[in-house]
Order: sequence, then C-alpha cells, then structure tokens
Amino acid sequence: MSRTPPPLGPGGEFDIIRRVLKDATPPGPEIALGSGDDCALIRHGDGFLALSVDLSVEGGHFVSDWGTPELIGERAVRIAISDLAAMSAEPLATLVSLNTPRTAGSGLAERIFRGCLAATEACGAAHIGGDLSHAADAIVIDVTALGKVVEPLLRSTARPGDALWVTGRLGAAAAAVRAWKAGGKPKDRWRRRFWEPPPRIEEARWLARAGASAAIDLSDGLLADSGHIAAASGIGLEIDWEAVPAAPEIETEIALAGGEDYELLVAAPRDIFTDDTTAEFELTFGVPLTRVGRAVSGSGVRVFRAGQEIEAASPGFDHFGDEG
Amino acid sequence: MSRTPPPLGPGGEFDIIRRVLKDATPPGPEIALGSGDDCALIRHGDGFLALSVDLSVEGGHFVSDWGTPELIGERAVRIAISDLAAMSAEPLATLVSLNTPRTAGSGLAERIFRGCLAATEACGAAHIGGDLSHAADAIVIDVTALGKVVEPLLRSTARPGDALWVTGRLGAAAAAVRAWKAGGKPKDRWRRRFWEPPPRIEEARWLARAGASAAIDLSDGLLADSGHIAAASGIGLEIDWEAVPAAPEIETEIALAGGEDYELLVAAPRDIFTDDTTAEFELTFGVPLTRVGRAVSGSGVRVFRAGQEIEAASPGFDHFGDEG
Repeated sequence: MSRTPPPLGPGGEFDIIRRVLKDATPPGPEIALGSGDDCALIRHGDGFLALSVDLSVEGGHFVSDWGTPELIGERAVRIAISDLAAMSAEPLATLVSLNTPRTAGSGLAERIFRGCLAATEACGAAHIGGDLSHAADAIVIDVTALGKVVEPLLRSTARPGDALWVTGRLGAAAAAVRAWKAGGKPKDRWRRRFWEPPPRIEEARWLARAGASAAIDLSDGLLADSGHIAAASGIGLEIDWEAVPAAPEIETEIALAGGEDYELLVAAPRDIFTDDTTAEFELTFGVPLTRVGRAVSGSGVRVFRAGQEIEAASPGFDHFGDEG
Repeated sequence: MSRTPPPLGPGGEFDIIRRVLKDATPPGPEIALGSGDDCALIRHGDGFLALSVDLSVEGGHFVSDWGTPELIGERAVRIAISDLAAMSAEPLATLVSLNTPRTAGSGLAERIFRGCLAATEACGAAHIGGDLSHAADAIVIDVTALGKVVEPLLRSTARPGDALWVTGRLGAAAAAVRAWKAGGKPKDRWRRRFWEPPPRIEEARWLARAGASAAIDLSDGLLADSGHIAAASGIGLEIDWEAVPAAPEIETEIALAGGEDYELLVAAPRDIFTDDTTAEFELTFGVPLTRVGRAVSGSGVRVFRAGQEIEAASPGFDHFGDEG
C-alpha cells in the first residue's frame, strides 16, 4: 500500500521527500496529518497535538560569528516554534538535540542550551528533553516543537478567490545575511531580525478566529513558500509586486525572494478581512497585516508588477528545504 | 520559580543539563514527565504520549565506512524507538532531521532517508515529518520518536529489594566498534548487532504486564545506565559480575561497560519473575531474561565478583550523553 506523496512546492530539494514517501504506508487513524505541512497533527482530546522538527546547521543556516551562542540557541527554538504558529497552535514543549564541536568544550553547549531554554520559556513552552553530543566539527541544533490546537490552519485549504495576506514587513533578515556574506556589518535591526525572529503565535490564533483559511510561515521566502501553499491547495497564487510589505530600506526583490522572515502568509476568503480588521490587527500586535495578492484556479505562483506578469526568480535558501 | 534538576547518573556530560535545567520553569499540568527519563510523557486520553529525540552524528556515534547509508538511517530510527521501548510504549510515529555533506549529492540523503522509513515501518510506526539540509561536512540524523503508553515504565520507580534483569546478551555491538577502531573487521554477528539493534518493544510491554517496576534501555552500557536508574530511583544497585549475560565470545568487561546494546535493564520486585517467567520470556521472544543483581538502599552502582566488590570502570561513550 502506498500513499500520495506530500504536495510540496517545486524544487529539487523536495524531490527526495516525494520519491521516498510515495512508497510509505499511510499513517494510522491517530495521525490526522503526516508530512507536507508545517506540522504533523496527532488526534488529542477534542483537537490535535502539532509536532514539527527544525534543523539548524552552522555554515548552512547560520554562521557562529554573526551572533552569540545564546542567540544560536534562541533562534533555533524560535524558528521551530514558528511552525507551530503557522498551524495556529499554542506552544506546549520543546526537545533539543545539540551537537557542538569536540574542540569547543562544554561551555559552548551550555550557552547554546541556555538560549534554547530562554526562547522556549519566552514562548510559553517547557523544555522536556533532548540529546547532547560533541562529535562533528559544526554546531547542529535540531528542535522538536510540540503544540496543541483545536482548529489548525493548514497549507492545503486555500481556495480560488481567497485574498493573500502577510504579517509584518519582509526582507530584513535576508538583508542581514547578504551583508554578512559580503563581509559587511548589517544594521542592528536587520541583525536582530535574523537572530530573533518572532514566532507569530498569538497573531496566527487571532487570524484563525477571524476566518483565515490557510497559512504557512515564511522561512524560505514569500515566493518559495507561496509555492508550497499553491501546491498543497491545488491552486495558483498571484502576488502584486507593489503590495509586498518590504521592511524599511529593503528592496522589494529581497522582501519577495529572501527567506528567514518567519512572518505568516495567510489566505482568507475575499472580503473577510476589512480595513477594520487590518487596523485592529495592527493595533493589537504592533505589526501590519498587508494584502499581497490572491488565490486563483490553476497552479504555481505568478508575480504582477503594474498589472503585467514578471519573471521573479525564487532562489529560496541553499539547504534542501523543510519537509514539515 | 525553579525545578528540581533531572536525576541523571554521574558523568560530566550530564552536568550541563543539570546546571541549565535547575533554572527552568516547571512544565504545566499537560506534561506528566519532563527531562530525565527515556521519554517525556504528555497526558493523552487515558494514558500518555511518549516523546524522545536521539541524535546520531558521523564520527561520534558511527563511522560511515562501517556500514551503508541505508543502515545509518535504520540504526538512527531503531535507537530512537528503543527509548519508547524503555517506557513500554508502543511506537506511533517518527520525524527525521537529516544533514548530509554538501559534497555528497542528494543520493546519499535519499538512501539514508529510505533506511529511516524502512525501520520506522518495521517498528509499526509512521513517518510524519522531518527536515533535510546539506550544510555541515558530516552526516547528522536526529530522530524524534512518538509512542503511546497507558502504564509507563520509568527509571525512577525501582525500589530496594527489587531484582535486576537484563534482556538478551550484551557486548557484541561494543566488540564491533572495538574491532573497527583497531582497523580490523568485526564478526558478522557483531556488525549486525551494531547496525541493527532490536528495539525491545514487545518484550518491554510483556515485562510491564508481568510486574516490572522500572526500566531503561542500554545505550551507554550496563554500568552507566544502571547509574541512571540508581540516581532516578534514589537507591543503589548491585550487579553480579558472573551473572552478566555476555554475548558468545565477548568478555564480561565489554558486556558490562560497552554501550550500544539497546537491550533493556529492568527492575522488578523480588520473586515476581520466577523460572517459569524467564522460560516463557525466552520461548516467546527467543532471547534470554537474566537476573544480574539487586536494588538496595543507598546510592550508586557496585559490582561484585565472587562475592567481593570490585572496581569496575564505566567509560560510557564519548558523547555528552542522552538527556531523555
């Protein structure tokens, strides 16, 4: 017995997952949702437990010199918990697996671990387990995030006619990465945005209650992550270049294609979110809620500038990608 | 508010965990058990979900040349599921985070991932998520194992007067590691025992029903893991050298101190397990159940040979250790 492979967006990185999982046995009835969304869902009481893993590897996802050991731990937990937010789940617990280089001594592991604990508790969760090693010559952190949710926001439930919305402003984290890679020093607010991405936990629950139909967190960039919603929902998405809410001093191209923002991309039936909704959202959370496009019949993601479709490359990030 | 740090056994590797977690907020009521046992436990229906993570790093936990990519994946899943067995939990699902070296191409990741899926399904579980990257120059696999259990076997519930039992025979996996490290070629059955450790899932549930009071899986070696039961239960353990069930051609010293066996160490009230019990266990599972010692008042682990206490070093393994 085989199952339908998870409907992930385009990218060679997802081919591995698709190829291997097409031979997998379908999960039993206790698993409400397996691979292919931000979290897996396990039936639990009147709702679900949401479960996700997020791997952070030195040299691929971050460079140590860009921050401190505490920030490395904090960021790893924040981006794992962002997957819970994308399902509108409430964080419950984290488990942390951490490898530090043999040569670094135990002080490095302790400082990273303290950062993990601080971020876990700041998100209202508890640290409930983990595994430490000091083998490979790179820092590797894998965070398992566990949350609970009654009515999860999925990637697969956007419908043609939905409007697309983005929380916050995009591109500052990617601008920081670009500055570091060019040997420069990013502006402080870019650097902070990279190291301390804000899991939009309360924002997501507010948007779910307000009638959102689907969501994903923006880890690979607005373009690439839009592709995941389009593939999972079996629809097309159209994004308006002029509407993309770039952070101050950030070019729209970076806001559109750069990753690491961990804001939310949300679909909602047209006319559900009014001017009142966006005003109340901004008043409540201190960040904007911006309409960036629409869901249509078809497939894939198209970008329009001054009403004309344009080529918009989606480089995504140079890791294999995020399975769920 | 702080909580009692998890009662882990001796070892510098556990000092980090103890130091950091003494400042942690106690988990909420939904978390029945946090760090310090083989799994964390989340209240779930009439029982619990058991959750554990297990990190395998190339160069620390295995060397690629010792096996195949498929075996690397299989072993990582089997040892993660062994933590479920140690709680007498039934495997439900796995999530797999995998890093492969950038230079290796996607074929390596796919082969390891196929091994992970095969072992997951062989254990009756479903693969429900993961994360792939290709940053660090080492293979890193972190497996999150999820199971369910109604009456979990803990590390902390052994009592003075309990007898100590071990499933199977010990030392073959450590003998394989020793042979590889010496540049030799291990016997086939040693090699198989390293790469395909058998999670004792059904054995643990059988022993729990038969009246076992506590359990741990033997990852760090009988001596080191006995220390964890002793610390968690607030008691001492005594082990009889002559009783240790070494695998054929394996010295008792290796059976006692070598790790990677993934057999179970189980405590049970004295006289609960009779000769009939051990005969039925061996008939059912094809492996022996051997009485190796007893729990006493006090603390720590002592080894007796010909009735005399002996010095028995517990080198454990050269990673930081397993937090839960």
